[in-house]
Formats: sequence, C-alpha cells, structure tokens
Amino acid sequence: MKLPDKEKEFLQWYTAVIEYANIVDKRSPVKGSNVIMPYGYSIWESIVAKLDGELKATGHKNAYFPLFIPEDYLEKEAEHFEGFIPEVAWVTRAGDRELDRKLALRPTSETIMYEMFRLWIRSHGDLPLKINQWCNIIRFDTKETKPLLRDREFLWSEGHTCHSTAKEAEEQVRESMELYEAVYRESCMSYLIVRRPKYDTFAGAIYSIAYDCPLPDGRTLQIGTTHNLGQGFSKAFNITFQDKDKKNKNVYQTCYGLSTRLIAAIVGMHGDEKGLIIPPYIAPIQIVIVPIYQKEQREEVIKASEKMLKKLLKAGLKVELDKREGYTPGWKFNEWEVRGVPIRLELGPRDIENDQVVLVRRDTGEKISVPMKDTAKKAEKILEEIHDFLQKRADKLLEDSISHPKDYKELVNIQKTKRGFSRVNWCGDEACAEKVKDDTGADVRGTREDKKEKPDGVCIICGTKAKEVVYIASAY
Amino acid sequence: MKLPDKEKEFLQWYTAVIEYANIVDKRSPVKGSNVIMPYGYSIWESIVAKLDGELKATGHKNAYFPLFIPEDYLEKEAEHFEGFIPEVAWVTRAGDRELDRKLALRPTSETIMYEMFRLWIRSHGDLPLKINQWCNIIRFDTKETKPLLRDREFLWSEGHTCHSTAKEAEEQVRESMELYEAVYRESCMSYLIVRRPKYDTFAGAIYSIAYDCPLPDGRTLQIGTTHNLGQGFSKAFNITFQDKDKKNKNVYQTCYGLSTRLIAAIVGMHGDEKGLIIPPYIAPIQIVIVPIYQKEQREEVIKASEKMLKKLLKAGLKVELDKREGYTPGWKFNEWEVRGVPIRLELGPRDIENDQVVLVRRDTGEKISVPMKDTAKKAEKILEEIHDFLQKRADKLLEDSISHPKDYKELVNIQKTKRGFSRVNWCGDEACAEKVKDDTGADVRGTREDKKEKPDGVCIICGTKAKEVVYIASAY
Repeated sequence: MKLPDKEKEFLQWYTAVIEYANIVDKRSPVKGSNVIMPYGYSIWESIVAKLDGELKATGHKNAYFPLFIPEDYLEKEAEHFEGFIPEVAWVTRAGDRELDRKLALRPTSETIMYEMFRLWIRSHGDLPLKINQWCNIIRFDTKETKPLLRDREFLWSEGHTCHSTAKEAEEQVRESMELYEAVYRESCMSYLIVRRPKYDTFAGAIYSIAYDCPLPDGRTLQIGTTHNLGQGFSKAFNITFQDKDKKNKNVYQTCYGLSTRLIAAIVGMHGDEKGLIIPPYIAPIQIVIVPIYQKEQREEVIKASEKMLKKLLKAGLKVELDKREGYTPGWKFNEWEVRGVPIRLELGPRDIENDQVVLVRRDTGEKISVPMKDTAKKAEKILEEIHDFLQKRADKLLEDSISHPKDYKELVNIQKTKRGFSRVNWCGDEACAEKVKDDTGADVRGTREDKKEKPDGVCIICGTKAKEVVYIASAY
Repeated sequence: MKLPDKEKEFLQWYTAVIEYANIVDKRSPVKGSNVIMPYGYSIWESIVAKLDGELKATGHKNAYFPLFIPEDYLEKEAEHFEGFIPEVAWVTRAGDRELDRKLALRPTSETIMYEMFRLWIRSHGDLPLKINQWCNIIRFDTKETKPLLRDREFLWSEGHTCHSTAKEAEEQVRESMELYEAVYRESCMSYLIVRRPKYDTFAGAIYSIAYDCPLPDGRTLQIGTTHNLGQGFSKAFNITFQDKDKKNKNVYQTCYGLSTRLIAAIVGMHGDEKGLIIPPYIAPIQIVIVPIYQKEQREEVIKASEKMLKKLLKAGLKVELDKREGYTPGWKFNEWEVRGVPIRLELGPRDIENDQVVLVRRDTGEKISVPMKDTAKKAEKILEEIHDFLQKRADKLLEDSISHPKDYKELVNIQKTKRGFSRVNWCGDEACAEKVKDDTGADVRGTREDKKEKPDGVCIICGTKAKEVVYIASAY
C-alpha cells in the first residue's frame, strides 16, 4: 500500500488514508452521508468525552430537541434561515400519506430550541440557561461532498445559552472559546482564531468567531465557531425574563458548535506518508502490542504479551494486543502505522530473554528499548513527547502557512499557488473581498481575535486607507 | 400541585409527572417528536453510560450509519420492511429541488448496516462482528403518540452482530440478554422475559425475545427486544465469509435494541403520589442538600452546606446543593420529591449545633438523623436500601399483575378490568390469539424464556389440546 503524496495531492492522500485507516467508509449508498467506522467513531468518542466533560464542568446541561422543524419556524427567523434554505432537506410524506405541513430536518437547532427557551425562561432566576445538544445535523450542501470535510449528515455538539446582560453573554463567548481550545489542545491542533467580517457573520449574530485550521494543501478548514447573538433571536422569538427590577427584558444569547469535521482536521494536520498519527490523548488506542515469534515460540511470547497488556491497562493506558494469526509482524506494523497508533510495542523471544521491550514512536520512528518493569512509566513519558512533537509541528505548519504579501499581485500569486493565510491590510469593504474571491477563490477570513493587530498602510486591494489587518485564505 | 391518582388514572398521572419533573416538554411543535429536557436527558445519560460500558466490555464497537436509507434498500428485505412501511418518513425535497430518489429516515438500521457488513466481512477472521449504534430513530406511528411511551422520534442503542455459526449467534442472544438485564437491574425494573409467538416475531428473525414490564394501570410496556436473525438477512443481503474449510458461507446474525422508552417504564414503575422516584444508581442527583435557615442564619448554614456538599462529592456521590433564594424549604422539598431524588439532606442551625444532618428517604419518607462525620457512609447505605426497596416493590407489582384465569370468561373479564398478565394454556393457533384481541384488546405476549412451563390442560380459548403456556396482556 502506497499513499499519494500528502503535500502535492492532499485530497487523494486524505481520501486514501481515511479508507485504509478505517475512519470512514464512503461506499455508503447515500451521497455525502457516510458511515463512520468503529475506529473513526472511537476518535469522535474521545472528542465527545473531553468536550462533554468541559461543558458539564461549566454548568451546561445536555438535552435533546426534535430533528423535525416546522416550516413556519424557519420563516420566523427569516434572516437567519435564508442561508440554510437551499440546503434544507424536507420530509413531505409518511407511509403513503402526504403530510399537511412539510417538516425540515434540522440544519441547526436555533429555531426549535429558542421556541422552548421562550417557554422555559420566566425570571432572572432561570438565567443563565446553558443547554448543549449532541445530535445529527442535515445539510444538503449543493457543493461536492467530501467525507467529514463536507457531509450532508454529520454529528456535532451545539451549545446555546441565555443571559440577563450583554456583558454575561460576552463572557460566555470567552468561556466557550476556552472549552473548545481545551479540546483542540488535546488534539494538538494549531489554528487562527478570527472574528469573521461583518457580512460573513452568522445570520442573526452580532459577531462570529471561528477557528481556522491550516491544511497541508494550503487550504483552511473551519473547525468550530462561536457566536454572540445579542438580542436578535430573543426579539424574533420573544424570549423574555423578569429582571430584578421587575421589568421584562429580552435575554442575550450565544451559541457555538463543534462537529465531526474536527476528525478531518486531525487527520489532515498530523498524518504523514505512512498514514494517520493520532494525538496521544484522544487516541482510542495509545499503544499496540505486536508479539514477534517463530511458530514454536508463540505460547511463550503471547503469554508475556498478555502480562504486559494487563500491566499497561492497569496503569490507565489504552492498549491493544494484536495476537491475530496469519499476519506477519511487518504487515501488522504497517496496519497500525496507517491507523496512527502513537506507540508500537514489539515483544519477541530475545526481548523476554533480556527482560525488555521495544517501543517505537509513530511520529519520529525512533525505537527505544525499555526494561519491562519500566514500560508503563516510559510509555507515558513518550506519549507526552509525541503530544508535544505534534503540537510543535502543527504550530510550525501554521506559522509557515502565513504569508505577508507586499502588494495585490503578490497576494494573488500566493493565493493561486501555495495559498495558506495571507496577512494583509484591508479597507473593510466587501467589494474588495469579492475582488479577491473572484481573482483567487480565497476569502477574507477575518481579524485575529487572540491578538490586536493594527494596519500600517493602505488596503492591499483598493489602496484606500486600511481599517484592519485580515487573513485571507481558501476554505474547504 | 396535586397529582392525579396513579392507579386509577395512570396516563394522567404519567403526563403530569413527566411535566412537573421536567422529563419531557411536550409543547414541542411537532406532534410525537418531543423535547427531552435536561433532567430527563440526564436519566438517559445514566442508562447510556451503563449500557455502553457493558457493550464495550463484551467487545461491541460503536459506529455511525446514515439516517437516510435509499428506497431500494427497503425493497431488498421486503418481508422485514413491510411492517415499517406505513411508518416511514420520506425526504423528497432538498432546498427547492425534488430528489431523484426519495430517502427514508431510518425506522431501524438493518438494511443500511447489513449492506456495509457485506463489504466488511471477508473471512472467519472478521467474525464475530459486534457493532452498536447510538442514534435517533424515526417512526411515524399512526397511533396516538405519548411522550416516551410512543414517539415519532426516539433515541436508542441498536446492537447488530454477525457470527460464523448458529451456535455462536444463539450465545450472542444470551449475552445481549445479560447486558440488558444489567441495565434493568440498575433501574430496579421487574418484567417478564418472553419469546414472542411465531407470527409476532420480528420480520426476518427466527425468534424474538422481549422484556415486558407491567405498568400500574395493568398494561404492559416492551422495554427491550433481542432477535436471533439466523441467516435470513445474510441471504437477502448476501453477507458471506470464507470459513476455515475455505468454503463461502452466510453469516448468522442477531440484533437488539433498547430505547428512551425505558425512561417511561422507570417513571411508571417507581413513581408515587408525590411524583417520581428515581432508582439510586441511575439517578442524576442522588442526594439534594436543602439548607434551612432564618435570614440572619443564612451565611452559617450555607457555609456548612457547602462543606457537606464537598464531602459527599468527594465520596463519589451525585449531590446537588439547592441554595436558591426566594423559595421556602417546603417548596423545595416538594420540587425535589416530584423529581424523585432518592435522598433529601436537611441542614439547619440546630443540626449544626448538634453536629448532625437529617436524611429523608424519598421512597418511605423515613427521616434519619446522622452525625455529620458519618453522612457519606450512611447515605451510601440508604441508597442501597432504597434500591432494594424499589426492586422488591417492582417484583411485587409484577407478581400481583399475574392472574391465572380458569376459563375464557374469566380471562375476558380480567383483561377488560384489572388487566395485567394472564397466564393461560394456549393451542398456538393465531386465530385464538385474534379472538382474545377482538374480545379484550389484549395480545398473546408469548412464552416465558427464563423458565420452562408446561401446559396442563386445554387451550383456554378454543378448548383443543394446549401446546404452551403463554402470557396475555394489553400493550402500550
């Protein structure tokens, strides 16, 4: 099995890797609605466990709202739904009956949730309300679908909160960012945190913050968003509360989402010519034990391997012992490399003799002999080192992906060739953003949210006074 | 707030309780597609955690398959889908486009999963394959919907396995029963395990085993099923493997499901005139601390309560401190009773003086004074006692619900009045079962699977030789 070149043919590499590594089976009969295979799903379970823990620790409560949304709900928040309408899937029949009113499948749950929030909230004592939902989302995107990158059905967490003041909503946006960043840190991701331009803000929101991750082909992938909704929705849906001053007021809201698309970013950011590399703290399997033996040594080696398995499991590590027969160690090495297991533990008769094992790092390929009794401790140390290695390499990828074109010609040239993020001065005019889009296919992604940047010249597109420093990139 | 009488007006009681206790909000705009509120959802999360742990410990892997099922897939296993067709919701449009082929929303996932299993399985080395999916299920039931009892959308776990021999599939059925019973035990459920009559077997299966739980109004609720599918589906879907003898054979399959309907059974089985009683080991909140004070004592009492909270959390208990202002202790007692929290911990100035707290059992109402330092230990003990109490009471409910009519007239009389399970001799003829259904609305639920029972007379309906002992009941 030889993978396509990751830098030169990223999408081919990506498609091959998610197939060989058993992440997604795209032979699903429904276009853009893929089968997440057990190994891929177990990565999602790691992400869910981490984010769900963070959400609960900050007072979010999980709930479940209907998949179906009545048509008139979508109309109620027309501005918000305008963008979704071309992508909405409609149920019009049940059995052999036509439905009286067709039902939308949720492309996101604002409308159905906020109708209920209106009923749930009465006084300031009911605030803040912090609800999260884990569910499937349906968007019949008209663009070409790509497994996990752009699906017609995907899984996500959507957080929705209500507050009594604008200040609290603003603080909630910051809290949601901390939660997401905790998940990204476990995934060794590197990304820009940007505030989207006004015209690209989530419909109904005051502002939108997004996490834009660089991929090796120079494109960027949005791996999460968080929105300050202000009172737009609460006015449309009439969500009010009686404040301490006995006056009825509209609540302030925020919402945020993180989806299975993150798996695509993890695959794209950390993989190499041998396949996936899964960050150690979200890896479903952190260590795979591959026993090595001639036929007559099997019993002895398997016994030692099982002892080692027990020991490592007891230390809280996620371990699997590959004792399948009929496969050579070399074949197994290959398979576990493709699947990105951070550490391979090799154990053969000579190792037993020497009371040691060999640990092989998936990231650097380094082989380390370790006395048997120190294996758990050493493995923990190596997992930490792999985590750091992946994070540093991701940070470098981000750094290297940022260009500083001096003029429009150079910007166009970069965005038509190596792409990445181009840091430029911008006048703030949507027309200039459209020009870039027409000339290169790239978008103005927004201004940095994690640091203040002041423009020091004119708009790179039109030459008038620049209002802000923005990052331009081609998105998936 | 006064609840309807549970025995006399069960459905009214049920509807009121799930509203007052914040389990489900049935004001959802889509009929039969309800909002599971945070408290109700947290009960589901306890069930999920328990079952998911059991599934993983027995080698099941979670995966995710599409919500959408192409029409021709349903046709492939016509026998299986015949029963579902009147309930299938169809997506026919996306945006303003008509779809080329309409898509069903999964009423269950056999067809889509088994198409993939066909691709995944090649040799005996790939078996057994044990896949589980947590997902939403859509069935546009034409009968009247009732929250959690009969919904158009519900959440469930569906296990699907493939094996190389009939014997292994049979063993898998037993394993699945053990998993479900572990979940039911935590929920203090009592039920009959019955093998459904041949004509009521899941379409495509060799036999179906179901868990029928008695509800206080004499009706029964199916809270789980497990099916031995034999080779019916594997032949329809052409799922084959190369066996050790190099021959290609069809796999043997099983499947099983457990849904949010279990929450309805828990509510129905354990609640009382004050509201819910949630079994301690699935309770989202096991102990609620209600501080009791006059205004000037507030600081001192809250401080002691917070100290107690920390202590109990540290002991691994699920505890909440209700320090809301503006509500009397009595109002709070009421609310937590409706919500069925197993233990209420009362803490006031006199308790602080005496270095004690008062624990109040939700099931018996008993009040127990406990030295502060012993609280965690004593609470654990009481939770165990409440668990046992609920289990014994449920067992008694089941026992009392079983009648032994001596003739058809008595059977009809029982099934038209107090209902419950009627244990009778039956000839095995579907026509006799239909007669009972016509006369009483009750079904032949099947034969006991957990114990062998031999008929000792003639069929209670037609008077010919009886073939088996069956249980007759009205189902939700």
